[in-house]
Amino acid sequence: MEFTNLLRQIEFIKEVDKLKYILRKTKLFGSNRNENDAEHSWHLALMALVLADHANVQVDLLKVIKMLLIHDLVEIDAGDTFIYDTQKNHDNTEEERKAAQRIFGLLPDHQSSELLAVWEEFEEQQTNEAKFARAMDRLEPLLQNASNEGGTWKEFDVNYEKVHNKKRVIEHGSATIWRYAEQLLNESVEKGILKK
Amino acid sequence: MEFTNLLRQIEFIKEVDKLKYILRKTKLFGSNRNENDAEHSWHLALMALVLADHANVQVDLLKVIKMLLIHDLVEIDAGDTFIYDTQKNHDNTEEERKAAQRIFGLLPDHQSSELLAVWEEFEEQQTNEAKFARAMDRLEPLLQNASNEGGTWKEFDVNYEKVHNKKRVIEHGSATIWRYAEQLLNESVEKGILKK
Repeated sequence: MEFTNLLRQIEFIKEVDKLKYILRKTKLFGSNRNENDAEHSWHLALMALVLADHANVQVDLLKVIKMLLIHDLVEIDAGDTFIYDTQKNHDNTEEERKAAQRIFGLLPDHQSSELLAVWEEFEEQQTNEAKFARAMDRLEPLLQNASNEGGTWKEFDVNYEKVHNKKRVIEHGSATIWRYAEQLLNESVEKGILKK
Repeated sequence: MEFTNLLRQIEFIKEVDKLKYILRKTKLFGSNRNENDAEHSWHLALMALVLADHANVQVDLLKVIKMLLIHDLVEIDAGDTFIYDTQKNHDNTEEERKAAQRIFGLLPDHQSSELLAVWEEFEEQQTNEAKFARAMDRLEPLLQNASNEGGTWKEFDVNYEKVHNKKRVIEHGSATIWRYAEQLLNESVEKGILKK
């Protein structure tokens, strides 16, 4: 049984390699190179590790990191959804749900249910862990765009109001980090890399 | 004080972006594209999450994942060391130690000491967490090479004995995973992608 489980887990490990090919719209820091979802997931997990003390409420860090390591796996089937895309519904589309069932379904049953539940918890945004994990997911591209003379804000003509509107959920995870993020947005307007 | 800490943490978060440019010798699964250290670190952390039940002794999973998320950061300064390189000493060179001090030193003092200690624990290979983390680090390229018709084994003319010798530490982390790994090595010899 242990060995049968292992074989299923190895299949999952091979399958998730595909995350390294899913390109995001945002670029690496001070760079022209698009970030892929695997790099992004690593960066967010490390950010959570380093920033956890700023959470509004003490969070279960292992849970947060689990969420961040797996949160984009559905994009292997469903593709990356750009946050400022107005055509597509972002949260928990039917396509993403199917993807989650297929991909986590490669694992032994008890693990498949566990990770599916962790992914759903992240998507539903009700728990402190989900809110803090989301704050990481919103913070990284903000830092990247600020380091890239406006990055996707300029490229896709997104203004301060839209950005502020998407980023303010950071506050639900951490008021301190949100204070920093707002400051960075204001500086970006002053520098002319984000239009008001 | 909280905000001063945050500013130091943000500097660290920007600095570690460089891990995405450090290329490993091994290629992605069934691919010709080199893996970078950030993708590799993400994959290992996710593998640990999924394979933890196979550890010889129950491990502190959060500790293992911390190790894996940060274990290669020193390569930002010291570069990637290829496991079958006979010219270079692999473990804890002076160069890597200096890199660890500089990179973790960007963080607030209490965090800098914590992560430096986690990195050293991984390097010293004495604890169950360090051994299980190392098993993940040895397993991933084995799976990759097996999926790539021999990959770096062929490219750098490494034989079964050398590979077996480097991989057997997997057993210290998980006897079950080692049983699978040995089976994969034997199959690779049979297939002619690893010479005996």
